[in-house]
Amino acid sequence: MIVKDMLGRSGVVSREEAQRILNEHLAISSPLLETIPISSALGRVLASDITAPADLPAFDRSTMDGYAVRSADTFGAAESRPAFLQVTGDILMGTMPDRSIAKGEAMKIATGGALPDGADAVVMFEHVQPVDAKSIEVVKAVAPLENVVQRGDDIKKGESILRRGRRMRPQDMSALAGLGIIDIGVFEKPKVAVISTGNEIAPANTVPGPGQIRDSNSYNLEGLITQAGGVPVKKGIIRDEYAPLRKTLDAAVSECALVLMTGGSSVGTADLTAKVINDAGKPGVLVHGVSIRPGKPLIIGVLGAANGPVGIFGLPGHPAAVSICFDVFVKPVLSRLTGEIPDPALEDVPSYRTVQAKLARSIASSPGREDHVRVTLEKRDDGLWARPVFGASGLISTLVKAAGTVVVPMNKIGIEAGEEVEVRLF
Amino acid sequence: MIVKDMLGRSGVVSREEAQRILNEHLAISSPLLETIPISSALGRVLASDITAPADLPAFDRSTMDGYAVRSADTFGAAESRPAFLQVTGDILMGTMPDRSIAKGEAMKIATGGALPDGADAVVMFEHVQPVDAKSIEVVKAVAPLENVVQRGDDIKKGESILRRGRRMRPQDMSALAGLGIIDIGVFEKPKVAVISTGNEIAPANTVPGPGQIRDSNSYNLEGLITQAGGVPVKKGIIRDEYAPLRKTLDAAVSECALVLMTGGSSVGTADLTAKVINDAGKPGVLVHGVSIRPGKPLIIGVLGAANGPVGIFGLPGHPAAVSICFDVFVKPVLSRLTGEIPDPALEDVPSYRTVQAKLARSIASSPGREDHVRVTLEKRDDGLWARPVFGASGLISTLVKAAGTVVVPMNKIGIEAGEEVEVRLF
Repeated sequence: MIVKDMLGRSGVVSREEAQRILNEHLAISSPLLETIPISSALGRVLASDITAPADLPAFDRSTMDGYAVRSADTFGAAESRPAFLQVTGDILMGTMPDRSIAKGEAMKIATGGALPDGADAVVMFEHVQPVDAKSIEVVKAVAPLENVVQRGDDIKKGESILRRGRRMRPQDMSALAGLGIIDIGVFEKPKVAVISTGNEIAPANTVPGPGQIRDSNSYNLEGLITQAGGVPVKKGIIRDEYAPLRKTLDAAVSECALVLMTGGSSVGTADLTAKVINDAGKPGVLVHGVSIRPGKPLIIGVLGAANGPVGIFGLPGHPAAVSICFDVFVKPVLSRLTGEIPDPALEDVPSYRTVQAKLARSIASSPGREDHVRVTLEKRDDGLWARPVFGASGLISTLVKAAGTVVVPMNKIGIEAGEEVEVRLF
Repeated sequence: MIVKDMLGRSGVVSREEAQRILNEHLAISSPLLETIPISSALGRVLASDITAPADLPAFDRSTMDGYAVRSADTFGAAESRPAFLQVTGDILMGTMPDRSIAKGEAMKIATGGALPDGADAVVMFEHVQPVDAKSIEVVKAVAPLENVVQRGDDIKKGESILRRGRRMRPQDMSALAGLGIIDIGVFEKPKVAVISTGNEIAPANTVPGPGQIRDSNSYNLEGLITQAGGVPVKKGIIRDEYAPLRKTLDAAVSECALVLMTGGSSVGTADLTAKVINDAGKPGVLVHGVSIRPGKPLIIGVLGAANGPVGIFGLPGHPAAVSICFDVFVKPVLSRLTGEIPDPALEDVPSYRTVQAKLARSIASSPGREDHVRVTLEKRDDGLWARPVFGASGLISTLVKAAGTVVVPMNKIGIEAGEEVEVRLF
C-alpha cells in the first residue's frame, strides 16, 4: 500500500509495506560461530543442536530420605501388618553402595543417594518404624520404582536437549553442566555500525562550538543495539560530505551485518544519505519515507556485500524517531541476525513487556499515519492511566520522561481520553 | 499465617509469611558506588540525582527546512497576498549565523540550524515561492516561535533529569551525552555468593566418580543472578561437613551481599545447613520450610555483617526448586540490593513477561500449598494453550522444556483443563 504524505508527495509507504520490502531484499545469511564456556552463554544463541552424550542421571537415585528396598518385600504392608526388613548398611552420598540388596533386606539412603543393586524402590522414613539398630518395620507398601529416578529418566543418551537457534536461559546452562558440556558453539553477536552524520554534531565529551550540538543519538543506538543482542560499532561523527560519508559507509558494510546512519532530518542531509547508499551498491535505497510518526523521513536500503546483503537504515535525527524506528524496523532485523529461532508458540506474543492503561488525554492523529505516542504512567484507584508526553520528537527529554509508547494505528484518527490502550514499555 | 505440612510438622510457613519475615530482618543498606562511562551504563542503577549543567539546546534551533524570519513580517500573508522578503544569506549547519535578521529579511535555514538574532520563527519551504536568487514570497503566516526550538526547551539548566535509583535505559544515556555528561556514578552490582554443597557433587568439567553427579545448579544460579543484575561469585563445591561449610559461609558473608547455598534436599543436609547458618551469627535461620512446590525445604536466614545484614538462602537441591525459589524469594531481594527505585506507577506490574493461555490438562494441587507448575506453550486456532510438563522437580529436563510457569494459589485445589491461566515466561 503506497500512501501519500500531507503534501501528496509520493514515495512514502506504510510501515507494513516498508517491512515487506525490506524483508524481500534482506536475506539473512547464517552468522559466524564461536565457542564459549557455558558460564558466558546467558542470552547467546546456540549454533547447533545439542544431544546428550550420556544418560542423566548416570545411575538410579533416590528422591527421598528413607530405605532402599525390593518393593516386593513391602507388598501388603500396613500399620497393622508391617513388613520386617534387615538393615544391612548406610549408603553414603557420592559413593556407589558397597553391597546389593537381597530379599528381606534394606539399606538406609538419603535423597540423591545411589540405589543398590537388587533394590527397586525407596520407603520414606515416615513409613518406617525402627525396631532395633539392625531392623525396621515398613508400614506402607511401595510400588516398583516408587521414590526412585532411574538412570536416563531425566535425559537419555542421544536425546536432543537444545536446538540450534535457542537463546540460552539459565536452566539451559544448568542442563549442559549436568551433562558435562562446558563449552558450546554459539553464533557471533551481529556487529551493527553506527554512523553519526552532520556538520553540527560535536563529540559528547567536548564543548560544542557555536551552532553545534553534542552527539547523543549514537548513545541511544548503542544501548538499543546492545539490548537487542548486537554489538555496536561506533564509526564516529562524519561531516555531511559525499567522500567521507561514502568511505565510512563502505567500511561499515564490509565489517558489519547492519549499518545505522543517524543524521539531520533536513532534505539536503537525507538526499545526501540516499545518494551515498545508492552509489555504494545494489539494490541501494528501497524506501525513502514511511507513514509513521515520529520517523517519517526514514531511509531503508540494502547493499550487497561479501558475506551477504547488509541492511542500511538512514534514521531521522530526532531522538524519538531514532527510538521508534529502531523498535519498529531495526530490532526485528537484528533479532533475525542473531540466529535466534523463537518458540513458534510465542510468534504472536510481543517480545517486550506491555501493560493495559486508560488514556488520560485524547490523542489526535491523521488517517494514513501510524502514530507512536510517548506516555508516562500514573497509578490511580481505578488502575493505570497513560498520559501523552507533550513536546516535539526532537526533544530527548520526552523520551526520558516516558515509560513507554501507545500506538495509534493508521486507520484511526486518534484515541479518546478514557479509552483502554496497550502501552509498550521501554 | 503458619501452615503445617502434610505430616503436620510445624515450621513450614506460607510464601507471604516467609517474605514478610525476610523483609522484616533484612534491612537493605545502600550499595557501594562506582563511576563508569555512560557507554557502559545500560541497565546500571544511578547512585545520585543528575541535574542539567546547561541548557539543551544551547541556542534557538529550527525544526524545519525553510527560512528564518521575523514572524511579524508574515502576519496576514496568504497565497493571494504573499509577504515579500529579502534573502540575506544561508545559515550553514554547525555555525552561528554571521548576521542578524532585520525587518523584511529572511535567511535560508535547515532543520537543526541555529536561528539568527532578530528571527523568531521559520517558514517551511512548502509555504515559500522563490522570486529570484535574492527574494522570496511567503504564502502562509507563521506565529512567533513556530518551527523553532528555543534554548533550554528540551532541558533547562539546573533541571532534574534523572533520579537516584533509575535503571539506565538507552534514551537516558542519550540525554546525558547531549548534556556532555559522559561519566556517571552508579551503584556497584551486588555480589551474590553461590555455594554448592554435597559429597555427591563433582565439578561440571570432570567425569563424576561412582555415585556422584555433576554440579549443575550453580550454573542455573549464575544465569539467574546475572539476569537479575547481580554478580555471581562461585565459591565452589563444599563437602557436607561442618568445618569447610562454616568457613566458606563466613567468607561469603564478609564478601557478598547475598549468599545462596544449594545442596541436597535430604534432612541431614538441610539440618547441617541450618546449623551452620545459626552458628555463623544472628539472627540466623528465620524460615525452614515454605508451603510452596517445588521448594518446600527452603531455608531463609539473615546474618549480621560489617556492611549490614546479609541474606542467606539454603536452596533445595532440585533444579526446579532452585529456579522457583530464586524467582519468588531471591530475585526481589536482589532487585532491592541493586539500589533500583522502580517507577511507582508500575509497582503492581510484573517485572517479567506474561501471557494468557488456556490450560491443556488439569492440574491437581493441595490446599495450603502454592504450586508453581512448569508448562510448555502450544499455539492453536483458538489461541495459546499451556500444557503442564510431566516429571519431578528433580529433573532438569522439565525446566529446559518449559516456556514458563503457572501458579496454583494456596487457596485452590487445582485448575481445570480449559481454564484461562497466566503464564509467567522464563
